[in-house]
Amino acid sequence: MKGELLYEGKAKKIYSIPGKSHEVWVEYKNSLTAFNALKKGEFEGKGQINCEITSLIFQYLKRHGVQTHWKENVSAQEMIVEKVNIIPLEVVVRNILAGSTAKKLGIEEGKRLQKPLVEFYYKDDALGDPFLSDDQILMMEISNEQDLKELKAKALQINSLLKDLFRAAGIELVDFKIEFGKDLKGQILLADEISPDCCRLWDLKTQEKLDKDRFRRDLGQVKESYEEVLKRLKEVKDL
Amino acid sequence: MKGELLYEGKAKKIYSIPGKSHEVWVEYKNSLTAFNALKKGEFEGKGQINCEITSLIFQYLKRHGVQTHWKENVSAQEMIVEKVNIIPLEVVVRNILAGSTAKKLGIEEGKRLQKPLVEFYYKDDALGDPFLSDDQILMMEISNEQDLKELKAKALQINSLLKDLFRAAGIELVDFKIEFGKDLKGQILLADEISPDCCRLWDLKTQEKLDKDRFRRDLGQVKESYEEVLKRLKEVKDL
Repeated sequence: MKGELLYEGKAKKIYSIPGKSHEVWVEYKNSLTAFNALKKGEFEGKGQINCEITSLIFQYLKRHGVQTHWKENVSAQEMIVEKVNIIPLEVVVRNILAGSTAKKLGIEEGKRLQKPLVEFYYKDDALGDPFLSDDQILMMEISNEQDLKELKAKALQINSLLKDLFRAAGIELVDFKIEFGKDLKGQILLADEISPDCCRLWDLKTQEKLDKDRFRRDLGQVKESYEEVLKRLKEVKDL
Repeated sequence: MKGELLYEGKAKKIYSIPGKSHEVWVEYKNSLTAFNALKKGEFEGKGQINCEITSLIFQYLKRHGVQTHWKENVSAQEMIVEKVNIIPLEVVVRNILAGSTAKKLGIEEGKRLQKPLVEFYYKDDALGDPFLSDDQILMMEISNEQDLKELKAKALQINSLLKDLFRAAGIELVDFKIEFGKDLKGQILLADEISPDCCRLWDLKTQEKLDKDRFRRDLGQVKESYEEVLKRLKEVKDL
């Protein structure tokens, strides 16, 4: 069923599916990268963990009315998804300031925001994924005004649902990065993945980091933290 | 009449005026800086040229309905202005892409925009004046929604007026940086300066640069270009 390799990214490989032009086959890799792939690593089982976390979350979001590209899992680290044209924006939602934005603004990591902050970064490795304002996005014709409004609304809806989900798992959702794509009908679907690779997740009680910052900052226990996130999500009763 | 030194910036000194608490005395310096003051220079007469250009432009804008902080010139390189609380945003308007934004977006310098692009940078030398989105400005409480709308509208109005003025002087207005302040009544006034230090100005026919890029990029003829801009502005009949 798995056809030719269409694209290999930093964390996933995308294959065609012969006879099914509207779907693609996604294989989650064990590799870990940070700082625009300047730092590289991997651990056994990472592909499986992120595949399972993403599919749990995408199914949860679907039950709550969010359209995603997820169709079905076909192995422990592979899923079939709807083929979409990815909108080249990394959509970041922040509930607590951390990472690049905290640094840029000279604010100590951990500042709780009164309301969630939505940010857009231009998906372009060669340019270092630059931060864009709405007006720059429109000028570049990356998106139009209506779609941009929809992306923001969807990002905030997803944030609200994810905060509830992670809180039920004893985890605070600090921030996350998502990507969207357009299907053949022009509908905007949540795409890519949602995993500890692209979220900041802090233990609700200890504030211990349970995400890729353990790799970025050499904090150790990377695999154990990813496993812990999966374990806790599976234990949430109404996931 | 000149009181104590209140503030010394990269290009100007600000003094109090005894007995006049609502006004300050601005002295234009001969120094030139670029790249957040990593590159430094100066030339004799620069303070006078920029003081004269700024006052010509501020008077032109005033005649066309734009409120500015300018009151009167008191010497060749000194003016009295209304005292305002500077809003810590560098407001940039671009008609043609050049400089940092062209580089950031991987677009060749010289791309003409279908409509002007307004950008905001946080005035903070220690942070390197980072680029901000509207949502980040609101989150940081640097400005509120209503003021931000007013800043954008004023920036576009000023751009439209300046484009006409410079075109009449045989100069193309590529981009410029302005700053605004609030007076005691809370009104937003155009403040700071408008000069070849903070505009990109290209000769309409030859596309030769007539602004601080000559200093930034070591193109020579810096003083001569600033003098040329002043000379041409003075020749515009309905300035």
